[in-house]
Amino acid sequence: MWQLYQFPLCPFSRKIRLLMGEKNIAYELVREDPWAASDMFFNLNPAGRTPVLVNEVKEVVIADSRAIGEYFEETVDRAPMINGTATGRAEIRRLTALFDENFYNDVTAPLLSERMKKRIVLRQPPDSRALREAMKMAHGHLDYMDWLIDNRPWLAGSTMSMADLAAAAQISVADYLGGIDWTGHEQTRGWYAVFKSRPSFRPLLTERMDVIKPPAHYALVDG
Amino acid sequence: MWQLYQFPLCPFSRKIRLLMGEKNIAYELVREDPWAASDMFFNLNPAGRTPVLVNEVKEVVIADSRAIGEYFEETVDRAPMINGTATGRAEIRRLTALFDENFYNDVTAPLLSERMKKRIVLRQPPDSRALREAMKMAHGHLDYMDWLIDNRPWLAGSTMSMADLAAAAQISVADYLGGIDWTGHEQTRGWYAVFKSRPSFRPLLTERMDVIKPPAHYALVDG
Repeated sequence: MWQLYQFPLCPFSRKIRLLMGEKNIAYELVREDPWAASDMFFNLNPAGRTPVLVNEVKEVVIADSRAIGEYFEETVDRAPMINGTATGRAEIRRLTALFDENFYNDVTAPLLSERMKKRIVLRQPPDSRALREAMKMAHGHLDYMDWLIDNRPWLAGSTMSMADLAAAAQISVADYLGGIDWTGHEQTRGWYAVFKSRPSFRPLLTERMDVIKPPAHYALVDG
Repeated sequence: MWQLYQFPLCPFSRKIRLLMGEKNIAYELVREDPWAASDMFFNLNPAGRTPVLVNEVKEVVIADSRAIGEYFEETVDRAPMINGTATGRAEIRRLTALFDENFYNDVTAPLLSERMKKRIVLRQPPDSRALREAMKMAHGHLDYMDWLIDNRPWLAGSTMSMADLAAAAQISVADYLGGIDWTGHEQTRGWYAVFKSRPSFRPLLTERMDVIKPPAHYALVDG
């Protein structure tokens, strides 16, 4: 069985868990906290980041969530997530990068820093200005998602794709950390409610990261 | 003909220019400075980053350098750069991400900030501590590259791949900005000298970014 090195609030690991869920690939989780990465983990991935995917005999080791995504796309036919014409596939990859990089840097990373790292590692209160700025940036990203969903059934086109998985993964972590205000974003909220009801998403919604509690609506399908 | 929106010291645009050179794809350059992105450019790419690839009639618009790379890999047979088995391709993509993300964040981005943005836009002197830190991080990355090249003809395996293009693109910008000290990195220096002599690389080495001058060795093949 595959092993996936991750921690519960890693958005990139969540993207891969959603992908493996949709593709019906069995795996077990190995916890690797970003503030306490072991030498063994740096040997697996010199970049020192989760997720890392390892097979049972450790002869296949794949780091980087996009590399893992492309690997499963190439080796597992079920539930294709980078599909269609070459330009359609480019659009899926563009949006995946937008959520992996821009949404993460603007929203998820500051929330993880203020509400996870400061709480669990540094034992400091969060900086309310940084939180406000992250929530403001989240509104901008949700506006863009609303616009995409006004024009397309799914974020990158007519079918669910890696772009949807990447976006849902980032949003789920931001929502867990209280960083998403859904007011005025009915389109994206409806898209996200559909996601939350999928079997691939349920294990994520019931998981908790140590002492950090999500808001009441977090795990509700219509929340 | 393709148009590529870029600026001369954008490492991600350089990666795509090397790729298009190796694949013999014709293109023209459109200058887009990161500190003065136009509304038109944000319409092309909401992420606001170079490179963006556009065809003549502007019906194909591809943003994100990895999405562009995969697009050319899928549509142009010549000079494959993401080749081999699924695990081999995963290794190419892991290393591409390592240079695009870790090398860029640790080395290229601080050098661009201190030696390009402060010089051209902010008109401030560079922070010598930030420069020293970037050069120290460069040594760590070059050590890892030395180790890879000790074990493989090219960074990701037996043939030149996207990982080599990504690394050469980052190093070429860092070297232009005086951030690479080659002492003690003979393996990587040899690998880079091979690269500099390729026809795909020559146009990059003769280009200059406004008033910023590279060190004397920058454009020399054996420099």
